[in-house]
Amino acid sequence: MDSMTFVLFGATGDLAKRKIYPALFNLYLDNKLPDSFLIIGVGRGELSDDDFQIRIKESLLTFSRHVVDEKHHIEEFIKLCRYNRLDVTNGEDYKNLLDVIQQNEKDREIKENRMFYLSVAPEFFDMIASNIKESGLSSTNGCKRLMIEKPFGHDLKSSQHLNEKLSNAFEEDEIYRIDHYLGKPMVQNLEALGFANPILQALWNNQHIANVQITASETVGVEARAGYYDKAGAIRDMVQNHMLQLLMMTAMHLPTQISTTDIRSEKIKVMESLRPLKKEEVVDHVVRGQYGPGEIQGSGVIGYNKEPGVATSSKNDTFVATRVWIDNDFWQGVPFYIRTGKRMNEKFTKIVIEFKNPLKDLYRNDNQNAAPNLLVINVSPYEGVSMQLNSKNPQNGNLEPIVVDFSSSGKDVPEAYELLIFDALRGDSTFFAHWKEVELSWQWVQPILEAFEEDILPLHLYPSGSMGPDPSNQLLKVDGFKWW
Amino acid sequence: MDSMTFVLFGATGDLAKRKIYPALFNLYLDNKLPDSFLIIGVGRGELSDDDFQIRIKESLLTFSRHVVDEKHHIEEFIKLCRYNRLDVTNGEDYKNLLDVIQQNEKDREIKENRMFYLSVAPEFFDMIASNIKESGLSSTNGCKRLMIEKPFGHDLKSSQHLNEKLSNAFEEDEIYRIDHYLGKPMVQNLEALGFANPILQALWNNQHIANVQITASETVGVEARAGYYDKAGAIRDMVQNHMLQLLMMTAMHLPTQISTTDIRSEKIKVMESLRPLKKEEVVDHVVRGQYGPGEIQGSGVIGYNKEPGVATSSKNDTFVATRVWIDNDFWQGVPFYIRTGKRMNEKFTKIVIEFKNPLKDLYRNDNQNAAPNLLVINVSPYEGVSMQLNSKNPQNGNLEPIVVDFSSSGKDVPEAYELLIFDALRGDSTFFAHWKEVELSWQWVQPILEAFEEDILPLHLYPSGSMGPDPSNQLLKVDGFKWW
Repeated sequence: MDSMTFVLFGATGDLAKRKIYPALFNLYLDNKLPDSFLIIGVGRGELSDDDFQIRIKESLLTFSRHVVDEKHHIEEFIKLCRYNRLDVTNGEDYKNLLDVIQQNEKDREIKENRMFYLSVAPEFFDMIASNIKESGLSSTNGCKRLMIEKPFGHDLKSSQHLNEKLSNAFEEDEIYRIDHYLGKPMVQNLEALGFANPILQALWNNQHIANVQITASETVGVEARAGYYDKAGAIRDMVQNHMLQLLMMTAMHLPTQISTTDIRSEKIKVMESLRPLKKEEVVDHVVRGQYGPGEIQGSGVIGYNKEPGVATSSKNDTFVATRVWIDNDFWQGVPFYIRTGKRMNEKFTKIVIEFKNPLKDLYRNDNQNAAPNLLVINVSPYEGVSMQLNSKNPQNGNLEPIVVDFSSSGKDVPEAYELLIFDALRGDSTFFAHWKEVELSWQWVQPILEAFEEDILPLHLYPSGSMGPDPSNQLLKVDGFKWW
Repeated sequence: MDSMTFVLFGATGDLAKRKIYPALFNLYLDNKLPDSFLIIGVGRGELSDDDFQIRIKESLLTFSRHVVDEKHHIEEFIKLCRYNRLDVTNGEDYKNLLDVIQQNEKDREIKENRMFYLSVAPEFFDMIASNIKESGLSSTNGCKRLMIEKPFGHDLKSSQHLNEKLSNAFEEDEIYRIDHYLGKPMVQNLEALGFANPILQALWNNQHIANVQITASETVGVEARAGYYDKAGAIRDMVQNHMLQLLMMTAMHLPTQISTTDIRSEKIKVMESLRPLKKEEVVDHVVRGQYGPGEIQGSGVIGYNKEPGVATSSKNDTFVATRVWIDNDFWQGVPFYIRTGKRMNEKFTKIVIEFKNPLKDLYRNDNQNAAPNLLVINVSPYEGVSMQLNSKNPQNGNLEPIVVDFSSSGKDVPEAYELLIFDALRGDSTFFAHWKEVELSWQWVQPILEAFEEDILPLHLYPSGSMGPDPSNQLLKVDGFKWW
């Protein structure tokens, strides 16, 4: 891997501390960083290199997945880290940063390859990108790359606007948009599962699949994020990005040759085939919910509209369920159900593929228990694949569902950020969101945003600790299905 | 269940002690015997009822799967057991037996339903059957049934001869031919697995399956059975019955309605479609082996021809591997490989279904490790289903096989004899071998018997503790496969 400078905006922030330094450290331990590599942390405050390194050390001791055995490596790793104060609004500071980088590139024999990771509030994205350009930071002889995290805008228009700004400074193929769900090993595995297994491949279509159910549930409430969340809702916080990414990864189909371009273009094809929802149709295909008071793991919790920072009158969505149709040859007639919410009774992300049951009638009398075949892809917290088959109970001869299970949770699995930063360092953008994916997602979600805004569909309260409001079950029931 | 008298010939024998009494006792505990039920043990020697009951008690304490918690039930159970001395060659003794049975039927209000279980040497089968008829034992107002165990003859002709004799006394639907492999829960499950699971159903044909491998391996040698085994060989002891039954159960196809008649007629169809082997072709499709000295679990063991009771010059087969073709629409072009032997390095019975890999080339460069998809049905000693899929290693992104596994061994699973005796008691012959199955199996095996007899193919020695001679691997290698 070619030498590189990694410039981290928001170096003293929470995400950097919890995710980015541990990810970089683990890559370091696995020899997955370039031989010549410098991390320049950029932040508002004054901080000496020593103090910066001490902070990083604390972060690693707390959050790294290998640490206890590897303490002596921490000292080596933090030597790769320098700090640089910068006011994001001040053009001069960028020029100073350029001087520092150039000096270090010279001293450490690092080529002019520069990765800019913006771990900052989204309102600064375009300003920082412009300043990177104007200061000459991005005028390199090597490669320049931008890594950013959602939110990429708060609706279709603002996301397009943001993208234009970023495009002035970086080409599309230089922009690495992190969707950390795409960094989860089982999500990355969807490609392999579907495509490297002829038996799944043979079944991966509307001839054999009855429906697909994608759930990401959380037990936490809004926590300290009301300022952001009350404006975003589950639809922006989860559906537009993570849920639609899971949908794309599940529904994309085998290109004839596996490559980054192919996988991303297949994902885009899925989004292009999503049946658009008109604002008036939202009520029939989308369930909007908000958590009321209830119980989580035995403890009483308050309702969303009593949370600090949330107005009692808030109609914000903390739960969204939706039915999605993909109008292409593979998926015509197969509903995809998506569901996500806070304060639900369990925390998990999983994808359930329910197969058709053409034999339903065959065993009708004595085998009431025979269930549909399911393929379950557990994304988190447990990683694994399980398959539900019917088997005979040797005691009484009845058919009963059995679960054939593979779980990899025991293994030492890299974190999403580790996989994604590693990919970005080597220039592999397979598991980053292409602008087209983002734009099509916003476009699909836009009528829902408007319908929510205009309050033209009901907001269903659901008790904390439930799996969402009952209309979410009805959504499937009318099609003859249920959530698994 | 209707009342019944269970007449057990060979009541003091080893099989009765180890399998039949424990099976009956466990059925008793599970309330699966008729309310009025009498077991009449029949044997050569003099034995009082008390002594007979003590023997049974000992057998249960040693061999029953539930016993420790259930000792107080043993006393109740053995009260159902009476002994009757009988010389199988003496017609008068049968008449006495009839008197005893009739007296008991009267005393205990048992209808004239009689089950005759012949747990005796096969040379007595026809004599006992004739005497049962002539003595009037089988002239009942109720049902009469015969249960027998292999060997059903030692070649096609002798089996036909035996069947004629039995047919004089019993109708085909009154004869329950035990093949204890058909009593194993996972074998009975094959029907449900293949047919109650649409996703397996969709894959259960030559479009998706590359080959099927059926292995029954033992670690034991000939033990004390040389007298029988040296005349039978693996071909008669295992292939003609158990292995071909496993083949039939795997290859049969969904009848439109599930019933005993259908399952047996589907099995017969498989046998009718087996491509016949000519004697001259045997050498190309059959591997004959005999174990030499070697090591089993770290201990040295002698070769077959040094075993007590075996001539040094014996050319008996202790290992057979064969390639079988089923010429019907479902299986045309899919080789079935069968392998069984003694003194192999592991004891197991399993069926491996290897799926085709049309995507082989897709991942050709970076995914050498991608393996074919396999469905593995573990019959014994572990019962379960596993599926081998390819998954991405999150550490390095390579494809690697993972095993998705379901095992039921932990559960309290009934023994083969329990399931089979229960079925016979209630008159369900699904999992017993129909005469047609037996005859077709002998017919298919006959040219192999003759080729072995005439020594027109090599006898390969293999070391004890191996998986058989190398030509067994070659058998698959020429088709591009290997044993899993």
